[in-house]
Amino acid sequence: MPNITLYLIRHGLAGEHGSYANDDERPLTEEGKQKTQQVAKRLHALNLRLDLIMTSPLVRAHQTADLLLEAKLSQALQVSPYLAPHGSLDQWLNWFQQERSPEVTTLALVGHEPNLSAWAETLLWDESRGALSLKKAGVIGLTLPEQSPVGNSALFWLTPPRFLL
Amino acid sequence: MPNITLYLIRHGLAGEHGSYANDDERPLTEEGKQKTQQVAKRLHALNLRLDLIMTSPLVRAHQTADLLLEAKLSQALQVSPYLAPHGSLDQWLNWFQQERSPEVTTLALVGHEPNLSAWAETLLWDESRGALSLKKAGVIGLTLPEQSPVGNSALFWLTPPRFLL
Repeated sequence: MPNITLYLIRHGLAGEHGSYANDDERPLTEEGKQKTQQVAKRLHALNLRLDLIMTSPLVRAHQTADLLLEAKLSQALQVSPYLAPHGSLDQWLNWFQQERSPEVTTLALVGHEPNLSAWAETLLWDESRGALSLKKAGVIGLTLPEQSPVGNSALFWLTPPRFLL
Repeated sequence: MPNITLYLIRHGLAGEHGSYANDDERPLTEEGKQKTQQVAKRLHALNLRLDLIMTSPLVRAHQTADLLLEAKLSQALQVSPYLAPHGSLDQWLNWFQQERSPEVTTLALVGHEPNLSAWAETLLWDESRGALSLKKAGVIGLTLPEQSPVGNSALFWLTPPRFLL
């Protein structure tokens, strides 16, 4: 069976926490949009192409995913509640193993910290110890076996946006 | 106390294993030299500057370190037997904590696999499970506390050379 390539991408720079009555609606700042656009262009130049982008429904994540689509990294976007701050890796893994179309072998998840780096650690080591630093608009790249990815995945990339600008 | 920034850099592409009577003398191939030079230039463009480069004494590693010096990433080079294939993290940590000059706060180690990725995992998680993929001429970036770095360090970068060319 082929391995799956999974990118975990943190949303770009957003307004201050508490600046919106409903934190789910807090958008990217102008600087956040620009930097995320630059990162998306660089990812395209590095030949990153995705069968699917899944995003957290929160505005700052959805905007980040839209910028990845605009940069032509993918043509498919799916909003997933599992990627919201209250979502869980177990829920997403259930989707991954039960509902994912078999043609989807390269995909990106756009979401939040500390979730994404904790998910990565769990896929790599079967536990999370807070040892991965994922900046806003940063990227983690993992290779997952289709069966039993928890504790059996490999990390081939982790980058802050400053090395992509 | 300040954190230490540690880069682990795997030597570039070398000749076939077994092509030299003494494997320690196996050099970089022409392609290996060129790619390593390109990586070194990109690291310089990303503003990487090192107080010290330590290298394994083996030819393919020493040549890689020389290319990093030529690209002006550092002015100081030290050959360390701890970075040879038979070296150990414990030996290096002893140097780090007993002999390192306090002015050295940003340094790179040039060496071999599976040692470098195992060292990184041990610094991050206090054990090694083979979950990090470090390609030839690839780079790992870690932040270490000066005291008790094993299990207490953080990963901020891991990249294959193809994302640096």
